[in-house]
Amino acid sequence: MAYDVAALEKLIEQFQKIPSIGRKTAQRMAFHVLDLTDEQAQEFANAIIDAHTKIHHCALCHNLTENELCPVCESVNRDHATVCVVEEPRDVLAMERMREFNGVYHVLHGVISPMNGIGPEQLTIKNLIERVSDGNIAEVIMATNPTIEGDTTAMYISKLIKPFGVKVTRLAYGIPVGADIEYADDVTLMRALSGRSEL
Amino acid sequence: MAYDVAALEKLIEQFQKIPSIGRKTAQRMAFHVLDLTDEQAQEFANAIIDAHTKIHHCALCHNLTENELCPVCESVNRDHATVCVVEEPRDVLAMERMREFNGVYHVLHGVISPMNGIGPEQLTIKNLIERVSDGNIAEVIMATNPTIEGDTTAMYISKLIKPFGVKVTRLAYGIPVGADIEYADDVTLMRALSGRSEL
Repeated sequence: MAYDVAALEKLIEQFQKIPSIGRKTAQRMAFHVLDLTDEQAQEFANAIIDAHTKIHHCALCHNLTENELCPVCESVNRDHATVCVVEEPRDVLAMERMREFNGVYHVLHGVISPMNGIGPEQLTIKNLIERVSDGNIAEVIMATNPTIEGDTTAMYISKLIKPFGVKVTRLAYGIPVGADIEYADDVTLMRALSGRSEL
Repeated sequence: MAYDVAALEKLIEQFQKIPSIGRKTAQRMAFHVLDLTDEQAQEFANAIIDAHTKIHHCALCHNLTENELCPVCESVNRDHATVCVVEEPRDVLAMERMREFNGVYHVLHGVISPMNGIGPEQLTIKNLIERVSDGNIAEVIMATNPTIEGDTTAMYISKLIKPFGVKVTRLAYGIPVGADIEYADDVTLMRALSGRSEL
């Protein structure tokens, strides 16, 4: 390209590195940055650096936090005997949005995936077992995704936890509320059938 | 939301300010930033600041550049007697991608739009007339978008330029009416260029 502004090109490249962002979107985003005031651009850059330096893992549940413990683990209003195990911090956001779950979390930061070279030791499973072995936990709810890796990880963890006499449950999987049975995929429908409950 | 990390929330907000980026995408982008190494995050932040401090308007054509003049205006290999007038810098990117146009540009940075309170004086029309009045320009190609505002702006500018005895042409309507030049495919854009008509 004859017209090539290095600083603009670099910024487009940065945006393009984000998963699911293509060249056109990255370009539009870069032009948005150019339209900002100097102050707004500084704010944007600071937000990136701040997020990076301030946010780390909660010492207990490994969710993202700016403090030693995350707000959920610190709260006295939460039921610390019920632990919901999720794959990623974004799953905690989804659970919290529902405003229905009053327990605490444990974030694995991934799933067991031999295909991608990820074994149990790369996840926070050891820390979860430590929490369970401390003896104050009554139930562990496995809320990993209903994928092969998610299911495998849930099975693996439940086998490690059961010897401690702790109840291990799994989120129900079935047809989403409001969806049509006609359009449900076979696997979902199979799960909905096998997980059917008495009326 | 009980789970609320201020630094993360701020970063999500920054991404969400970008047009066409919704909450979910902004969240995914913020999590991408957290996954970067410290060095990569610093690079990202620098790219934003750099783009903002280094990039300004070319003194001649008002395209984006890091120098006094943009590479196109500085080039001795371009035909400086043919000026292509576009709305935005991204339109220059589209024209250059085609590798068919060898003239120079003039970027208006908008279109006349009374509905949005944008009159001719907010655009770089005065600078264009100055360029034309200097006497070295043989043809001005109006490449504003085929919208009501784009057409109006093209007509307005052509009336100002014609008294100087300069040929004024308009890109052919090979571009689908109502669409954006930025998103035109190369072949459509090429046909629009070769089929340009005199205004």
